[in-house]
Amino acid sequence: MPRGQFFNMGDLSKGIQRKLAEGIATSIFVGDTVMVSFVRCEPGAKGNLHAHPEEQWGVLLEGSGTRTQDGERLAVKKGDFWLTPGGVEHSFEAGAEGATVLDIFSPPRAEYRKPGSGFDAG
Amino acid sequence: MPRGQFFNMGDLSKGIQRKLAEGIATSIFVGDTVMVSFVRCEPGAKGNLHAHPEEQWGVLLEGSGTRTQDGERLAVKKGDFWLTPGGVEHSFEAGAEGATVLDIFSPPRAEYRKPGSGFDAG
Repeated sequence: MPRGQFFNMGDLSKGIQRKLAEGIATSIFVGDTVMVSFVRCEPGAKGNLHAHPEEQWGVLLEGSGTRTQDGERLAVKKGDFWLTPGGVEHSFEAGAEGATVLDIFSPPRAEYRKPGSGFDAG
Repeated sequence: MPRGQFFNMGDLSKGIQRKLAEGIATSIFVGDTVMVSFVRCEPGAKGNLHAHPEEQWGVLLEGSGTRTQDGERLAVKKGDFWLTPGGVEHSFEAGAEGATVLDIFSPPRAEYRKPGSGFDAG
């Protein structure tokens, strides 16, 4: 194999597994400067409001939902993507068909380097 | 609008536009620590081999192709994603149906902060 790593969204077992909330599970992959997190949300599943110093981008790969960010709520659909600057409070609630979100963090979040639960350490 | 930025893949006009090669166009969005690049490849379009010090991740959103990385060639399909460490030579060639690739860089590549052409400055 060449230097680097190759994966497929259909088999996320090689990632660091984390249960973010009831009905929200993610698989996390880490490089030196980037951390990617493939978040699967069941229909109507809701994460809690939180913030962290690391910059975050989200890409809505499948489904729909509501993004709460900096105190405002925005309906988001497949194909939407967004920047969440470090320190800005945010949460996500999946729509009726659920949602798959690719979250990108830089630098990698220390809390997400190990399996666990929740949006923070644990 | 809340702090942050919201976009959709169906309208990439707010990005920095770049023609990477014949039949390969991208739209680039930049934060403080992350740069995302939505690359659309026409069927059979081929980028040239290059390297850069910034870490890169690729996510094959649509289509298929061949990833050349560190001197080896790997067939890739929709849903594949990969890490390309900084300094590792790489290129991409789209399959018969074309391809859409999300490239993620951190830190942001200086060369991609302005419109232009090619994988390097220009």
